[in-house]
Amino acid sequence: MIYESILTSVSSDGIPHIAPFGVREHQGLIFIAPFRPSTTLDNLLATRQAVLNFTDDVRVFAGSLTGHRDWPLRPATQVNGQVLISALTHQELELVEVRDDEVRPELYFRIVHEEMHTPFRGFNRAQAAVIELAVLVSRLHMLPIEKIDAELEYLSIAIDKTAGEKELQAWQWLIDKVENHKAMMAGSNLA
Amino acid sequence: MIYESILTSVSSDGIPHIAPFGVREHQGLIFIAPFRPSTTLDNLLATRQAVLNFTDDVRVFAGSLTGHRDWPLRPATQVNGQVLISALTHQELELVEVRDDEVRPELYFRIVHEEMHTPFRGFNRAQAAVIELAVLVSRLHMLPIEKIDAELEYLSIAIDKTAGEKELQAWQWLIDKVENHKAMMAGSNLA
Repeated sequence: MIYESILTSVSSDGIPHIAPFGVREHQGLIFIAPFRPSTTLDNLLATRQAVLNFTDDVRVFAGSLTGHRDWPLRPATQVNGQVLISALTHQELELVEVRDDEVRPELYFRIVHEEMHTPFRGFNRAQAAVIELAVLVSRLHMLPIEKIDAELEYLSIAIDKTAGEKELQAWQWLIDKVENHKAMMAGSNLA
Repeated sequence: MIYESILTSVSSDGIPHIAPFGVREHQGLIFIAPFRPSTTLDNLLATRQAVLNFTDDVRVFAGSLTGHRDWPLRPATQVNGQVLISALTHQELELVEVRDDEVRPELYFRIVHEEMHTPFRGFNRAQAAVIELAVLVSRLHMLPIEKIDAELEYLSIAIDKTAGEKELQAWQWLIDKVENHKAMMAGSNLA
């Protein structure tokens, strides 16, 4: 089972980095596998500490693909790390094992601290649609335009019916990226 | 903005009823609009109390469409109602206003009590896919087979990649319902 969450890490110079990760549990440990090159990977190998943030603000996911990475943070309680203010829950992690790989090393963490901040409010179909569009946008270069358009049309139904302001903003950032990609693809056909 | 959640109500004889509802907020009140006829509506008009459960167990959503409605409950803290054991958070509600309608009356509630039980664990794409398939299954009779098949194929990607056991079970219940519907439609073409 994979959960989509936001991992915050800190460089050895203390600069925070915010990145979405699909996260698994494996024998009581938290497990991620970042693709190289990765600022998160560099930070984690340097500090061996991280914060896993469970937020329902989908702008943080969409923002990581569209240049909006400046989200409010506060210091973690027990590790050298930063907590996303919009996290409903967060876990503070310590790196316990690295299985190195040239493409995608595997990192295993122990949970050293956890805090619940804000209640879960149920499923919102627009939030799920933004997550799906973010996945699609991260693979734009591999997909035919027809498939992109078909998925957009399908996902936009949940946006139209159930979105709030944050979901609309995240959706628009991703749509702009898709439109830029399509314009670029059209241009490359003319060249 | 609409959240998908599980509303539990109790009849005047004390029999609990579990049903999924799209829920909105309106000027600080919780707002639902059940289609008639509705056991939930009957119960709410009789007792004027309810519990809103925010669960990530998508079997409760899929189960309401496929005859699996017997989920563990415990008594609410401040209202005459029942709380879903799998709720991450629940709210206890009191009915304050009814705008009657022959098709779809509107019910407004005040939140009298709230409890957080279990932390939110992030977005799971398979849970979102089950919710989407549940929406589709609730509208099967209005949809062409081709559209159903196309959506199933799309949604199954997130199931294959990110589902846990609960999501797989919920997905299978809904798939069985879709297959029954398709078999019935094929039969009706022969008649």
